[in-house]
Amino acid sequence: MSRLSHFSGRNRVVIDAMRPMLDGGAFPVKRRLSDTVDVEAHVLADSHAHLDVVLSYRKYGESWEEVPMRDVGNDVFCGAFHPASIGVHVFRVIGWIDAFRNWHVGFVKKTAAGDPDIAVELLIGAKLVEAAAGRAADGEAAQLYDWAIILRDASRDLGQRVQLASSSDFYALVSAYPDRSLQTIGAEQEVWVERDEAYFSTWYEYFPRSCGPVGQHGTFRDAAGRLPEIARMGFNIVYFPPIHPIGRTFRKGKNNSLTAADGDVGSPWAIGSEEGGHTAIHPELGTVEDFQWFLGKAAEQGLEVALDIAFQCSPDHPYVRSHPEWFQWRPDGSVQYAENPPKKYQDILPIHFETLDWEALWEELKGVFEYWIEVGVTVFRVDNPHTKPMEFWRWCLREIKLKHPEVIFLSEAFTRPKRKYRLAKAGFTQGYTYFTWRNHPAEMRAYLEELTSDPVRQFFLPNFWPNTPDILHEDLQRGNRATFMGRYILAATLSGNLGIYGPAFELLEHEPFPGKEEYNHNEKYELKNWDWDRPGNIKSEIARVNEIRRGHRAMQGMEGLVFVATDNPHVLAYIRQTADRADQLLVIVNFDWHHTQTGFVELPLLELGIGSDKSFSVKDLYDPSMPCYEWRGSRNFFKLDPSKAPAHIFQLLR
Amino acid sequence: MSRLSHFSGRNRVVIDAMRPMLDGGAFPVKRRLSDTVDVEAHVLADSHAHLDVVLSYRKYGESWEEVPMRDVGNDVFCGAFHPASIGVHVFRVIGWIDAFRNWHVGFVKKTAAGDPDIAVELLIGAKLVEAAAGRAADGEAAQLYDWAIILRDASRDLGQRVQLASSSDFYALVSAYPDRSLQTIGAEQEVWVERDEAYFSTWYEYFPRSCGPVGQHGTFRDAAGRLPEIARMGFNIVYFPPIHPIGRTFRKGKNNSLTAADGDVGSPWAIGSEEGGHTAIHPELGTVEDFQWFLGKAAEQGLEVALDIAFQCSPDHPYVRSHPEWFQWRPDGSVQYAENPPKKYQDILPIHFETLDWEALWEELKGVFEYWIEVGVTVFRVDNPHTKPMEFWRWCLREIKLKHPEVIFLSEAFTRPKRKYRLAKAGFTQGYTYFTWRNHPAEMRAYLEELTSDPVRQFFLPNFWPNTPDILHEDLQRGNRATFMGRYILAATLSGNLGIYGPAFELLEHEPFPGKEEYNHNEKYELKNWDWDRPGNIKSEIARVNEIRRGHRAMQGMEGLVFVATDNPHVLAYIRQTADRADQLLVIVNFDWHHTQTGFVELPLLELGIGSDKSFSVKDLYDPSMPCYEWRGSRNFFKLDPSKAPAHIFQLLR
Repeated sequence: MSRLSHFSGRNRVVIDAMRPMLDGGAFPVKRRLSDTVDVEAHVLADSHAHLDVVLSYRKYGESWEEVPMRDVGNDVFCGAFHPASIGVHVFRVIGWIDAFRNWHVGFVKKTAAGDPDIAVELLIGAKLVEAAAGRAADGEAAQLYDWAIILRDASRDLGQRVQLASSSDFYALVSAYPDRSLQTIGAEQEVWVERDEAYFSTWYEYFPRSCGPVGQHGTFRDAAGRLPEIARMGFNIVYFPPIHPIGRTFRKGKNNSLTAADGDVGSPWAIGSEEGGHTAIHPELGTVEDFQWFLGKAAEQGLEVALDIAFQCSPDHPYVRSHPEWFQWRPDGSVQYAENPPKKYQDILPIHFETLDWEALWEELKGVFEYWIEVGVTVFRVDNPHTKPMEFWRWCLREIKLKHPEVIFLSEAFTRPKRKYRLAKAGFTQGYTYFTWRNHPAEMRAYLEELTSDPVRQFFLPNFWPNTPDILHEDLQRGNRATFMGRYILAATLSGNLGIYGPAFELLEHEPFPGKEEYNHNEKYELKNWDWDRPGNIKSEIARVNEIRRGHRAMQGMEGLVFVATDNPHVLAYIRQTADRADQLLVIVNFDWHHTQTGFVELPLLELGIGSDKSFSVKDLYDPSMPCYEWRGSRNFFKLDPSKAPAHIFQLLR
Repeated sequence: MSRLSHFSGRNRVVIDAMRPMLDGGAFPVKRRLSDTVDVEAHVLADSHAHLDVVLSYRKYGESWEEVPMRDVGNDVFCGAFHPASIGVHVFRVIGWIDAFRNWHVGFVKKTAAGDPDIAVELLIGAKLVEAAAGRAADGEAAQLYDWAIILRDASRDLGQRVQLASSSDFYALVSAYPDRSLQTIGAEQEVWVERDEAYFSTWYEYFPRSCGPVGQHGTFRDAAGRLPEIARMGFNIVYFPPIHPIGRTFRKGKNNSLTAADGDVGSPWAIGSEEGGHTAIHPELGTVEDFQWFLGKAAEQGLEVALDIAFQCSPDHPYVRSHPEWFQWRPDGSVQYAENPPKKYQDILPIHFETLDWEALWEELKGVFEYWIEVGVTVFRVDNPHTKPMEFWRWCLREIKLKHPEVIFLSEAFTRPKRKYRLAKAGFTQGYTYFTWRNHPAEMRAYLEELTSDPVRQFFLPNFWPNTPDILHEDLQRGNRATFMGRYILAATLSGNLGIYGPAFELLEHEPFPGKEEYNHNEKYELKNWDWDRPGNIKSEIARVNEIRRGHRAMQGMEGLVFVATDNPHVLAYIRQTADRADQLLVIVNFDWHHTQTGFVELPLLELGIGSDKSFSVKDLYDPSMPCYEWRGSRNFFKLDPSKAPAHIFQLLR
């Protein structure tokens, strides 16, 4: 009966329901280095026997380690490990029935009950001790063999033999060499252990080409001039749109017009020209050496540099000639451009992932990341990953993570939720979100509840962007200073990761292309000459919020978010606190950017660990000019005038 | 890069989150033949392309069939199939991007927009039509090739060619031969399609040996005398404790005493003697021919016969000599008996499942079921399955189901919940439950909510037993007629499957062994001489309840249970209704078996489909002497006097 061969018939332990586990182990969960990886599982066997259960884990390519798992009742076992370094780890649960330990439990009970058969029990024990000796280290094996001889020796006093078998030394040494030949090994689950910046990062996107003198194409050297100011505002990642040569064929003009005028610089996302493709640098920005010099200047300011990787080609990209099989060709001999019928995007060629040459294509694209990692880049923002195969990402990201676990990938997938989440499961570290379109307190709360619940929190690290070069939400179009600051505070206090597209954001730029959710005179298609210090900017406010984030662990991830009831539907109130409650903040945001709102919050005192009769003080970190208030009890008053500040960021002090 | 070989790189569709799915497809879900198997899945691809998705299914050993799945939005697809017969089925989801269909959508839009490139589009279409011709049946291939020639023919009028490509005949024929070479096949899930009796059965357990004349060991022929009465009470399965020869060594005496007196008959669970083992019949019960005669008599009364299979041996079992390797042997040469130190059960030898000879052992035990199936048995109650390896059951039950899908297995696992459920996942059709120990309305409700929710309802069919030869709950020990009837009504109206151990139950037998949850003078260890018609019995009441069950589809499974709020905590009220609401019952049970309770129920009128201003009548089926009440609105009064009836079983009539 061949189906019998699928079974390990002598192994009586079964392992079920390990957690965390994502889709039966098909996708990795994520943790940060400072996290403990807590694991639980149901471990069962067909008897009343005591089970031995361990959590087995290793970093990819290293050897397995084990920690015991604790029986917490009802067939549930718990254990935890703490990874020593970032990278791809894997864990599993292993269980077995330890014959010696179970014999010993029975032996102790029988001895206590004065069982007349105890001599036979000693013989059974002797056999188990001998077997342990066979598994033991040399020195200890001799001791075990000696004990086995004593247990068997009928000429010795029975009481003495029983005493030996009941001693704690005996128990400890024998049980150090368990018989695991019939152990059951549960399913494996990967955990990608990430560096802290995966969970806590503050991004600043800008166009280096707009950093030059008026009328001139900016360079990396020009862009470096902005770094001290960006660092002063408290950002830790600067992110550039694609820095590659830009195609000339069908180049788009200003405001996305179909024909470019002389001197129009084109969209950085129309990648590739005779000067090169995805591993080349636009000559007007500088050379690879200039870029590496820029990386150094950024590092001096405590800034990392994120590159934008967009796997699409202009018709002038070198791949079109070197790898025609990576594109689709039309019967008239022309190459297939991107389209959403009847619209045509003739400046962009999508890559034909169904090509028979897919293996070389996948390797080449992975090589693009590897090239820039070699140059010194450790953060990538990936453009439209949802228009490339999910399975490509699952392979590519894991291959890179195995060698370069420090690399962070931000997925720019503005698409339906299941695709967005699938990309995170495939390995993207962070993802853009629907934050921009959550403009009322109730919908913001519901969205955060989704993001911070299982299974999403196991694999998806959100990155909240109030604006991007592609998105100027109506709320900002009609907004004022309070809108911009309010949206920034929401992003900064609800998510460990956030970013803005500057300097448009801090200058409160908000002129829309008529009828669209986009900027007019979009920087995607033209050089801008920003007055980086334009009056009315919110640079110092942003700096203050970022300083609060840096100073408070409670803000540096997605954990410890507790929503707080209020009686005013225009207002969202929430606690951010660390697990040890050493750091507790209360944020109250007035979503009505144009009118003062007042009301009461009802603090969850039990969850905060504050006695209902205890007073505590709240200090507004966002407006340090405000006095420190003494509060007592759960119900407390607030008043938010957006012309002064759209939010309180209170620190709770005892 | 070898890891690439794990990927099908050209397949762009991914399939996630198929439901129902149990632990990633590791275990079967269960359905009854009259059910439709509804399946949903997330099906995604890396484009805006329309996806084609089918639900693929087959009965084990037969060929695959397909039904289309419907896109219900948000990347979710739904489909359903209706199995043609009982047995092991498997299903999966298959998706692909149909190049022709997607070309056609674009073509229609481009035509409407007056695209100047439409001639090129026709050439692309021609290529797709030719490819379809290559996949088509002979007659249709010719038509398709003709159309391809027309689409390509630049000498023909463009408008005519466009018209052809836009026609519905054209679309229908080409899309009948899709290119599925890059389809993605999702994970497989088994569904065991069961006969109706798996979901709706009423069991009557009795000891055939107690059916003889006073002082004599009963036979199958004696036991057959009870069948008409059992059928009259409305049962459809009679179940016998083990019918095998009983061991003599260490035989237990009356009331489980350690030494048997002369003439003590022993426990039927101490299986095996020189007269045979698990495929033999106790000579005093009769021969296998007598048993088959009994099966026929039962069938005449519409009754099936369930056998008790207990995989354990008396020291006299033939296996002990023929297969000593299936037992554990102690160093003094004695065989290892069952024990729970310091207790010893020397009349029972557990089977040593860790034996090196496990394959022969597994085959032998499966053979026991196969032997009795051959004799004519289709229902088995399996004793203590949780003390045999989970993996043995997973193998054994599936092997039998593949050949004998009609067989029903009831798991007698009175153990912790995770083990109980794991046995159901391993393939047991029905399982005993904690019903007996749920003695308050709130805990009964909570338990039913667990049983009727995912994932439990996908694989576990409960069987509710108010008593068994092993269990006489304190509630019954202290109980009166109302207790017995109330517990029976609860079992009968909350679960599709139930059973009693008779005639102890219907005779209200309730004398406990002092201090235990067991019967005194237990029939497990002695012959009984019941007065089957003892005054005060509740036979006619049981018959009435069983008749209500038979007459009402709403009672014949676990579906359509809705709890109803009441203001009296002694009372549990619930609706049982069919999906089409054609059959609606309201059950109100007073758990206070000794006092009258009154109160109000708050009917969920929306869920019942009753207008809030509409009147409806309720007719008590349990007490037909009660008038038919006219009710209106959700809030209605009840009064239950247990000296008359512990419950109402109202039918709702419009």
